[in-house]
Formats: sequence, C-alpha cells, structure tokens
Amino acid sequence: MAKYQIFVTAKKGIFDPAGTISKNALGNLGYEGINDVKIGKFIQMDVDDSVTVEDIEEMCEKLLANPVIEDFTIGAED
Amino acid sequence: MAKYQIFVTAKKGIFDPAGTISKNALGNLGYEGINDVKIGKFIQMDVDDSVTVEDIEEMCEKLLANPVIEDFTIGAED
Repeated sequence: MAKYQIFVTAKKGIFDPAGTISKNALGNLGYEGINDVKIGKFIQMDVDDSVTVEDIEEMCEKLLANPVIEDFTIGAED
Repeated sequence: MAKYQIFVTAKKGIFDPAGTISKNALGNLGYEGINDVKIGKFIQMDVDDSVTVEDIEEMCEKLLANPVIEDFTIGAED
C-alpha cells in the first residue's frame, strides 16, 4: 500500500473566493496582519503498490484537479 | 512576513462525501487499486511576523476549520 498527498491550488491570477472571504472574515474578527489567505484542496490517497505516481498525475488531470485553473503537487507519504 | 500552511481533514469516523465520490469516480474511469481517497482543505497564509502560531491556531478553531468534525495541522513555511 502506498500513500500519496496531493495539494491543489488555484493558478496565479485565478480568483480564489474562499480565500478572499476568509481573509476579510479574519479582519472582521479583529485579527491584524493577515496579508493573504489561499484555500485549496488537500487530497490523501491510499493505493495499491501497482499504482504509479504517473497514474496519480493522470487522475489529477482527469478528475481531481481542473488543470485549466488549478495547479497540483503530488507528494509520497511513507 | 511569515508563511503558514494549514491542512484541514475530516476527523476519523466523519463521512467525507467528496472523497468517497472521487474514489468511486476513479473506479468508474477504469483505475484499479484505489483503496481510499480523502479530500480536505489546504490553506496557505501570508501574515506579518507579529502573528504567532498560537494566533493561527485560534483562527483555525474560530473560522478556518470546524473543530467538531475536522482536525487541522499547522506547518510553517520558510
């Protein structure tokens, strides 16, 4: 069994409404010094050893991320 | 300026519909050997140096995560 972690983030220049709203809400709650908040997806996958990192990359491109507006990074977990 | 990364995941036993649906969809696309998919949030924050990790923890408890159903981990980025 292999474990992978995938980080999906909005591409540079793509509007991230959840991040912007969270930043403003933190300001309204009285927190100061918050310059930027970005919210993406954190995906954890448990797969058989037969599944390669190239397979994971393909799954991200086809389903787990939207490559038009999102970047993704794949990391292996021990 | 300090950067923090926050990983928000569903607590053990809490249903993660996005993860379950993604796992099934990957199966329908013909991928085999996918045992589990969990989808959480990946939050990146840029804050002033005056903001401490304890502040970030408080922000997670109050706004960024729902401590009743979600766990969160905070990491510092250099």
